[in-house]
Amino acid sequence: MFQLPRDAATTASAPPRRELRWSGWGDPAQAASLDPRIAKLARAVLGLRQPSPPVPRERVRLEASRLGERLATQFEELLGAPYVRRDARCRLAHALGRSTPDLLRMRRGDIASAPDAVLLPADHGQVQAVLELCAHARIAVVPFGGGTSVVGGLEPDASPYVAKIALDLRRLDRLLDLDERSRTATLEPGLQGPQAEALLGERGYTLGHYPQSFEYATLGGFAAARSSGQASAGYGRFDERVLAVRLATPRGTLQLGRAPRSAAGPDLRQLALGCEGALGVITALRVEISPLPERRVYEGWRLPSFAHGLEALRRLAQDGPCPAVLRLSDEAETAVELAAIGGRESSGARRRRGRRPAAGTAEGGERAGGAGGALVIAGYEGSLPEVRRRRKQAAAVISGLGGQPAPAAGARWAAARYRAPYLRDALLDEGALVETLETACFWSALEPTYEHVAEALRSTLAARGTPPLVLCHVSHVYRSGASLYFTVVAAAAEDPIAQWYEAKRAASEAILACGATISHHHGVGRDHRAYYARELGPLGVELLRAVKATLDPEGILNPGVLVP
Amino acid sequence: MFQLPRDAATTASAPPRRELRWSGWGDPAQAASLDPRIAKLARAVLGLRQPSPPVPRERVRLEASRLGERLATQFEELLGAPYVRRDARCRLAHALGRSTPDLLRMRRGDIASAPDAVLLPADHGQVQAVLELCAHARIAVVPFGGGTSVVGGLEPDASPYVAKIALDLRRLDRLLDLDERSRTATLEPGLQGPQAEALLGERGYTLGHYPQSFEYATLGGFAAARSSGQASAGYGRFDERVLAVRLATPRGTLQLGRAPRSAAGPDLRQLALGCEGALGVITALRVEISPLPERRVYEGWRLPSFAHGLEALRRLAQDGPCPAVLRLSDEAETAVELAAIGGRESSGARRRRGRRPAAGTAEGGERAGGAGGALVIAGYEGSLPEVRRRRKQAAAVISGLGGQPAPAAGARWAAARYRAPYLRDALLDEGALVETLETACFWSALEPTYEHVAEALRSTLAARGTPPLVLCHVSHVYRSGASLYFTVVAAAAEDPIAQWYEAKRAASEAILACGATISHHHGVGRDHRAYYARELGPLGVELLRAVKATLDPEGILNPGVLVP
Repeated sequence: MFQLPRDAATTASAPPRRELRWSGWGDPAQAASLDPRIAKLARAVLGLRQPSPPVPRERVRLEASRLGERLATQFEELLGAPYVRRDARCRLAHALGRSTPDLLRMRRGDIASAPDAVLLPADHGQVQAVLELCAHARIAVVPFGGGTSVVGGLEPDASPYVAKIALDLRRLDRLLDLDERSRTATLEPGLQGPQAEALLGERGYTLGHYPQSFEYATLGGFAAARSSGQASAGYGRFDERVLAVRLATPRGTLQLGRAPRSAAGPDLRQLALGCEGALGVITALRVEISPLPERRVYEGWRLPSFAHGLEALRRLAQDGPCPAVLRLSDEAETAVELAAIGGRESSGARRRRGRRPAAGTAEGGERAGGAGGALVIAGYEGSLPEVRRRRKQAAAVISGLGGQPAPAAGARWAAARYRAPYLRDALLDEGALVETLETACFWSALEPTYEHVAEALRSTLAARGTPPLVLCHVSHVYRSGASLYFTVVAAAAEDPIAQWYEAKRAASEAILACGATISHHHGVGRDHRAYYARELGPLGVELLRAVKATLDPEGILNPGVLVP
Repeated sequence: MFQLPRDAATTASAPPRRELRWSGWGDPAQAASLDPRIAKLARAVLGLRQPSPPVPRERVRLEASRLGERLATQFEELLGAPYVRRDARCRLAHALGRSTPDLLRMRRGDIASAPDAVLLPADHGQVQAVLELCAHARIAVVPFGGGTSVVGGLEPDASPYVAKIALDLRRLDRLLDLDERSRTATLEPGLQGPQAEALLGERGYTLGHYPQSFEYATLGGFAAARSSGQASAGYGRFDERVLAVRLATPRGTLQLGRAPRSAAGPDLRQLALGCEGALGVITALRVEISPLPERRVYEGWRLPSFAHGLEALRRLAQDGPCPAVLRLSDEAETAVELAAIGGRESSGARRRRGRRPAAGTAEGGERAGGAGGALVIAGYEGSLPEVRRRRKQAAAVISGLGGQPAPAAGARWAAARYRAPYLRDALLDEGALVETLETACFWSALEPTYEHVAEALRSTLAARGTPPLVLCHVSHVYRSGASLYFTVVAAAAEDPIAQWYEAKRAASEAILACGATISHHHGVGRDHRAYYARELGPLGVELLRAVKATLDPEGILNPGVLVP
């Protein structure tokens, strides 16, 4: 399945790779500036102390690379000299992920852990050769996709090793095969979301996978961290779309998956999915694809309360028709969302665009913002008649629970769907602490989990003298349960990293106490490792270690990440 | 999740356990006798030589139990004396599965491998204690559910062990919890299909899992062998419905699964699913349940050819609406099916029941049978409007490809859905060799796989002088591919087991050569182990062995089954 020669592959039409800003999110040209009224409000409500801009990049000092010349030459012989990089700019760009603690450290120039070199292999064979050489030379390897980890997944504990390299997979960027009859594509892991969509889109297909990190994260990362996209209710999670996987390991190559489903033993593909680069490096993926939808519609609804919204989501998830995107904000997040709509778009602006609020809708209430209620975003993707049918049937369920249309909210969500990380940078600039965390559980545990986690965050931060704003939404629904995604904003304390980890610890304890999982879609990394160990139990930890020892006996792959 | 006390559990209303006939399938009172015309036809077409009835049970001699008194006493102290059985009848009933080679050996009284004792634990704690004692005493353990394995899953290689026990889980038969809000049930593994359905049915729910072995197989077996039910397109495979699992192992207990989905590392639940009792014993399962459908309809369609049928199935699986049951017979199986309808039900009989063939339908052609074409069975389960909508839309797809209604076929399929194993017994009595095998692959590989496997079976058996009838159907569809299920009937040769294994070897080689999987829903057992090893590759085999060594370092669990 992965045998196609380089010539037969398609790369021509993919857009160029996007680079993350060194100390924050995304394209500097698209950086958000905070609406002055919101900035003022944030300062007043949260008690922000002072602006806190990042240091200039020139101020950042990295330790000298520990990679000796002999090894560097060996890597250059394997990959070619241009693909072995030891310059500070490249090392810095591969030093950390994009959690708030990562950003806070970058912003103050505190980069203890940059890789000693960045390697850029061209194909599976080169990845395999690099791993074998690193195992032999005891060099720690950080597989690197988009660099968007928010759980410390790019910062292994490399102290016992000779050196640490980042294995950047960006040159593995080919569409290897498109099987239209089976509706599958075989793709390399280094493609960023928009690159993969471009390659598939010109043939009429989509992966349907749009996580918030879509513009920067890669397919390999989606698979290795079990990513879930905003349209997961329609297309499924990324791991559910992966049918076959090729994994390079220090012990050789694994190729797993020959059919849509199989009863041939335990599903070992599931060890590659979620492996976070600690068990191997994914070098090819055969994934399900879908025809490009004829129509995409995203619409907003306002329900009387979060509890009403949960009931609507549960009914749609269990009895259908389930929209492709289904998302519910709690009352606090709804107030912020609707205030933002009110701030951005006056009714006059709407009239100039030729749209009017329909009589009898709740648009008045929507503009007012903050007046209670919970916002639902429902998105439909597919053929025209199918979108029409699902929309109509779902509308009956939502309005049956007291939902009122909130027409501007759907378009606003669609326009802002990848913007939140930019907003975080702007808030950090203002001296705020902003971070998110997430979990998932069964429906019967959802409300207690919501309450206990929010309370843990509020009480911990309030006790430090920085009472936070805690917002929450449900963004992924299943028949048996759903995810919860919390956003926390507070005034940054003297040591905001310690401040956050204290709150995060309390929230993580609440998650486990409620029987929920430590991560629905962010992964384990270093930050969740201890909680993950408690989820698995001692024997589960032993099992995972045995898998690791088989594939990576020298322990060079992302040491300290994932495996407790 | 698995902490409920015995008193709180529900067992009262489950029907009694069903026992398999010692030398064949199911309830002797329901044994099939072959329609005399079909028997005559089979004798003529296949050249059956002579009837071949089973020996009387009294003629079967088992070796003396190797389980010594000291160990037997220890087991009795753990479980209570009535739950440690060493009588010949009980040992015989746990000796083999229900593959045709198993049946042929039982029918001639050739039982080399009965367990030395049958243990009947009452709960998880007793299972755990038995495993620890067996590991200490080096006793091989065969976890035993319904005893319906068709891949040699109940016959481990116990020669290096002190003794071999069957661990029959029938007393773990409780509904531990029903979470209506989350639509999940927590059940014990020893429940047979009808028992579980009775417990859930009185609360208004169903598992929706109806494999052909439904009446005898158990939930633990469904999970441990990754079973797929006849309505898999509607409800999903059994493994897809399992949200959490408790696994007893010689090294202790694993509890895996806290949420509908998680990004917390590799999904280790997937090591318990498909483990075939070789990695542990499943003692509780939290599974998705569905409301009992308001309506169930099964209808037949006749398409111009198998190729037309495949096209219809692919379109329904990929673009919907997908029926809950979707099955397509090739031309040969269609001819046999329709001949059976013709043989069983005259148009007079239909008129007496007050039903008439609708004008313009293909019922005339359906009665005639054998005149070409491929039969599709489409089944719909759900609410009245949903069934109506799906039926109508699917009918448009099927009739657009030349499908004509075959009204009697749907009811006939529903009435006979669990009958095929009875028919096998009747054909074996007549001196036929009858067996099935199955695989799955992507849509683009489906037709070549179909042709190569069928040809391998035909040519191998013809070369032995027993040209076979090879029938095939597709019974499980996915967006990216489907299963193929072959039925082979030939005259039994002198040594029918060797005759079958030769044909099976050729078919298995064809399956691997086509890139398909060695099993879609039968599992690995002993029979597929060597092919499974080739699917995994050497490193995959090492990985599985490392998992086994961690959970079962003495190797007492089903030695020789699954793990190469």
